[in-house]
Amino acid sequence: MSTRRRPRTSRGASFAQPAFGQRPRPYAPVDVLSTDQVAAIHSAGLEILSRIGLRVLDDRARALFRSAGAKVSDGTVRLDPAQVGELLKTVPPSFTLHARNPAYDVTVGGNRCVYTSVGGPAYVMDNDRGRRDGNYAEMCDYLRLVQILNVIHQEGGGPFEPMDLPANTRHLDIYRAQIGLLEKTWQGQTLGRARTLDGIAMAAMALGTTPEGLADRPALVGVINTNSPLQLDIPMAEGLIAMAEHGQALAITPFTLAGAMAPVTLAGALAQQHAEALAGIVLTQIVRPGAPVLYGGFTSNVDMRSGSPAFGTPEYAKAAQASGQLARHIGVPFRSSNVTAANEVDAQAAYESQMALWGALMGGAHLLEHGAGWLHGGLTASFEKLILDAELLMMMDAYFTPIDTGPGAMALDAILEAGPGGHFFGTAHTMARYETAFHAPLLSNWDNYPTWLEKGGIDARTRANTVWKALLEQYEEPVLDPAVSEELDDYVARRKAEGGAPMN
Amino acid sequence: MSTRRRPRTSRGASFAQPAFGQRPRPYAPVDVLSTDQVAAIHSAGLEILSRIGLRVLDDRARALFRSAGAKVSDGTVRLDPAQVGELLKTVPPSFTLHARNPAYDVTVGGNRCVYTSVGGPAYVMDNDRGRRDGNYAEMCDYLRLVQILNVIHQEGGGPFEPMDLPANTRHLDIYRAQIGLLEKTWQGQTLGRARTLDGIAMAAMALGTTPEGLADRPALVGVINTNSPLQLDIPMAEGLIAMAEHGQALAITPFTLAGAMAPVTLAGALAQQHAEALAGIVLTQIVRPGAPVLYGGFTSNVDMRSGSPAFGTPEYAKAAQASGQLARHIGVPFRSSNVTAANEVDAQAAYESQMALWGALMGGAHLLEHGAGWLHGGLTASFEKLILDAELLMMMDAYFTPIDTGPGAMALDAILEAGPGGHFFGTAHTMARYETAFHAPLLSNWDNYPTWLEKGGIDARTRANTVWKALLEQYEEPVLDPAVSEELDDYVARRKAEGGAPMN
Repeated sequence: MSTRRRPRTSRGASFAQPAFGQRPRPYAPVDVLSTDQVAAIHSAGLEILSRIGLRVLDDRARALFRSAGAKVSDGTVRLDPAQVGELLKTVPPSFTLHARNPAYDVTVGGNRCVYTSVGGPAYVMDNDRGRRDGNYAEMCDYLRLVQILNVIHQEGGGPFEPMDLPANTRHLDIYRAQIGLLEKTWQGQTLGRARTLDGIAMAAMALGTTPEGLADRPALVGVINTNSPLQLDIPMAEGLIAMAEHGQALAITPFTLAGAMAPVTLAGALAQQHAEALAGIVLTQIVRPGAPVLYGGFTSNVDMRSGSPAFGTPEYAKAAQASGQLARHIGVPFRSSNVTAANEVDAQAAYESQMALWGALMGGAHLLEHGAGWLHGGLTASFEKLILDAELLMMMDAYFTPIDTGPGAMALDAILEAGPGGHFFGTAHTMARYETAFHAPLLSNWDNYPTWLEKGGIDARTRANTVWKALLEQYEEPVLDPAVSEELDDYVARRKAEGGAPMN
Repeated sequence: MSTRRRPRTSRGASFAQPAFGQRPRPYAPVDVLSTDQVAAIHSAGLEILSRIGLRVLDDRARALFRSAGAKVSDGTVRLDPAQVGELLKTVPPSFTLHARNPAYDVTVGGNRCVYTSVGGPAYVMDNDRGRRDGNYAEMCDYLRLVQILNVIHQEGGGPFEPMDLPANTRHLDIYRAQIGLLEKTWQGQTLGRARTLDGIAMAAMALGTTPEGLADRPALVGVINTNSPLQLDIPMAEGLIAMAEHGQALAITPFTLAGAMAPVTLAGALAQQHAEALAGIVLTQIVRPGAPVLYGGFTSNVDMRSGSPAFGTPEYAKAAQASGQLARHIGVPFRSSNVTAANEVDAQAAYESQMALWGALMGGAHLLEHGAGWLHGGLTASFEKLILDAELLMMMDAYFTPIDTGPGAMALDAILEAGPGGHFFGTAHTMARYETAFHAPLLSNWDNYPTWLEKGGIDARTRANTVWKALLEQYEEPVLDPAVSEELDDYVARRKAEGGAPMN
C-alpha cells in the first residue's frame, strides 16, 4: 500500500507552488552565544539536574530513572553529569519519518527542517465567523488545506479540538482523519498511555505494519512538555514512555516562559530549559536506546506588566538560536516553533511570526512546530493565519535557495546585450529564466496603489480568506487502500465501544 | 552652539523607549555566498567595468575619470581592475556624522548601523485621510516624530514632497525644517549641484562652521542612484561631485531590479550592481581621496507577470546579505534599506519589511535607508508605517542585546528558590530585574483575546494611528541658537530671491 505517488501540484491554482520537499539550508546557523557561553549554560543545566533535580510524578518513570543509576528521593530524580553524558550517546543525530505515501517521507536532522501545521489549539477562527469552538467537519477542512499546501511537510497533531465529538474518543476520530485526508506524516497525541498507543496502532495500520514493526519505520512525532519548573507529570511521562518503547520520535519541550515558569533572565531560563530537556531526552534513551528524540526549545517571555505570555519577541528569537546551539552541543536534533501572541492576522501576527521563523530556522531547527496556523499564543488555529504562514515559509525556502554564480547566471552576455541605459525585459537571458526566477507569492499583492484601490483595496488578511477557500476547492482525497481503511474503521469502532481513553 | 544635551526620553509616553544610541551588533553577519562566489562576482563586476564600462552623461565627471587614468570614449568610461583597486585604497572604513547636538552624532562602520527615516516619496498617507499629496505642515509633523523616536538615528532626506511649496525652492524649506525641528543628523538632496550646495551650506551653519570646514566634521549623507544599467546621469553626477568635494558622505546605490534594469538572475544583478557601485565609489575618491562613501545594495526583483517592482522578497534579503559580503570584500561601509511593496500597513507590509530588515541588518548594513515609514515601493511615506517600523527596529535592537551568562543571570539560586513546580513571579531575582528584562513594545498588544475584544478589537494598523498621534503631542522643539536661526533664515530668503535651484 505504500505506492509512491508524486506529490500533487495544485492543479488550476492561481499560484504555482513549488513541489513538496525539504529545502536544505545552505547557510550556517546564527550563533548568539560564544562557545564558552554554550558550555556555561550546559554546565548550569547539568548542575540543576544533579543539585535540584526533576520532580517526576509517575512511578514507572521514576523507576526507569532509578534503573539507569539516577538518585531518586521524595519523588525527585537527580542525575549526575557523567550519567547524562553516557545516556546521550545513543541519541540518533538524524532520522526519517515515514508517511503512508513515501513521497512525503521527511528527514529530521542535518541541514533540513520539517515544517508542521499548528497542533493542539482549543479554538478555530476565520474572518467570516470569528473565534469559536471547532467541530469535526471544519477540522477536516483544515487538514485538507494542510495536505494541499506543499510547503507544509507534516501535520502537527490535530489543528484544533473538534468539540462536537466526545472527549474520551475524540483522538480516535482525529487520527482517522489525519490518515484518511493526508498522505503526509502527522503527529500523535501523547497525553496518557491510551491515546498514545491508539496513535501508534493506527499509524502502524496506515503503513501496513504492526505497532512493534513501526519501530523500524518511525512515523510519528509526539510533543512532551515538562511542567516547568522542573516537573514531569503522569500523562506526559506515560506518553513519553509509550512512544519511546515503540521507537517513535519525541520532542522534549520545556515550557520555560522567562519571568513566570523560569527565571526572568534568558540565561537562567535557558539553563532551566536545558536541565528539563536533558532529563526528558535521557529518559527516552533509558526506555529504548536509539529512540529518535529532539531537543525542544520554547523559551519566551511574559509581559511583565500583565503576566501575559509574549511570543515572537526578540527574546524568543535569541532564545531559539541559543537553544539551537545547546542542541548541537549535545548532538540532538532541535525543535523550535512559529509563534505569535497577536489577536488578528494583522501586522503584529506577521512580524512576531517572522521574528520566530528567523530565530528558529536560522537557529538550525530540524522540526518547526506550529509552522502554519498558530494564533492567540497557541489557543487558536486560524484559517487565514495558515495562509499567511504558508507564504512566510515559502519565502524562507526561497531565501534558502542558494545563489547560482555559474557563468550563465553571471549574465555578462546579457549585460553586454542590454548595454548602458538598456533594459532586460526582452533579452534571451530573461526569457529563458523568468518563469521560475523568483518566489511566486501566495498572499502578497504587488499591484501599484491605484490598481490595488481599483480592485477593491483588499488587505492581506482578507486576501488570505479568499486564498484558503480557493485552495480548498482543489482538494482531492488521496486514495487509501480499502483494506487499510476497513482495518482503521474497525479499530476506531472497537476502541470507541471500549470507552476510548480515560479522561485526565 | 554644539551644547551637548541629553537626548530626550519621551516624557509621559505610555511606552518607555530605550535611550538614543546605536546598539553594536554582537553576531557575525550571515554569509549567503562562499568566499569563492564573492570573488567571482567581484571579478565579474570588474570585467563589466573594463569591457562594457559606465556611460557617464556629465562632462565634468568624465573628465575626472579620465584624469585618473580611465579610458573614455563615446561618453563611456572604462576602468581597469588595477585602477579600481588603487582608487579604493583611500576609502575610509568608518566615519562619524555630526549632528547639531553632538549627543546625536552617529558612526558609520564597524558593527554599528545608522537607522534612518524614509526619504524621498512623492506622497504621504495615514489611516484618516488615505494617500494624498503632502504639504509642508504635515511634513513638519513627520519630522517631529522622527526626532521623538529614539530608535531612528538619522532623518532620511525629507520624508515626502511638500507639494504646497514651489519646486525650485522646496529643498530650502525642507533643509530649514530638518535643522530646526531635529537635533539628529539628516540627509541632503543631491539632485543637481545647486540643491546639493544649499544643503552643505545650511548644514555648515547648523554646525557653526563653513562649507569648507564641514569636511572635517561631515554631517550629511547623500544618496546617488545610478541609472541602471550602467549609466550615471548629469544631476546625480553633479550631486556626487559637490558632496565629495566637501567631504560629505555618499551612498552609491545602483537601482538594479533583477529582470528589468538588471539581469533576471541574482548573480547577474549583483555583478552589475557591483560594477556600478565601484564606478561611483572610485569617482568620490578621484574627487577627494578619503571622502566618506558607502556601497549601496538595492538589488530586488520585479514581478515577472506584471513587471511591478517587488521589495522585501526572499531574493531581496539574499541580495542584501550578498551585497554586504561584496562591500566587506572591498572594505567599504555598506548601505541597505527597509522596503515593502505593500499597499496597506497590513501583514504584508510587516513581513516584507521584516524580511528586508533581517537581510540588511544580518547582512552587516552600516546605513539602513528608509528604515522607518516606507510604503508602496517607496512612493509613499506613511505615518502608521513609521510606527510599525520603529517597533521592528526596536525589536532588532533588543535582539542585538547580547545574552548575559554571568552568575547572576544564570539564576541558579532563583531556580533553587522557586523549586520544582514553583514559579518566579515573586522571587528576588525577578523583582530586581523585571522592569528592563525584555523589549517593551510600542505597537504590539499582548492582551488575551477576550480582553482585546472587550477593548474594541483594535488591530495593529489602527493602534499605530493612536501611537503616532500620542507621540506627536509630546514633541518639544529643540532649542536652536538664535544667531544660527537668523543666519539660516537669511540664507533661505536670499536663495529664494535668487530663484532657488534650476528644475531638472
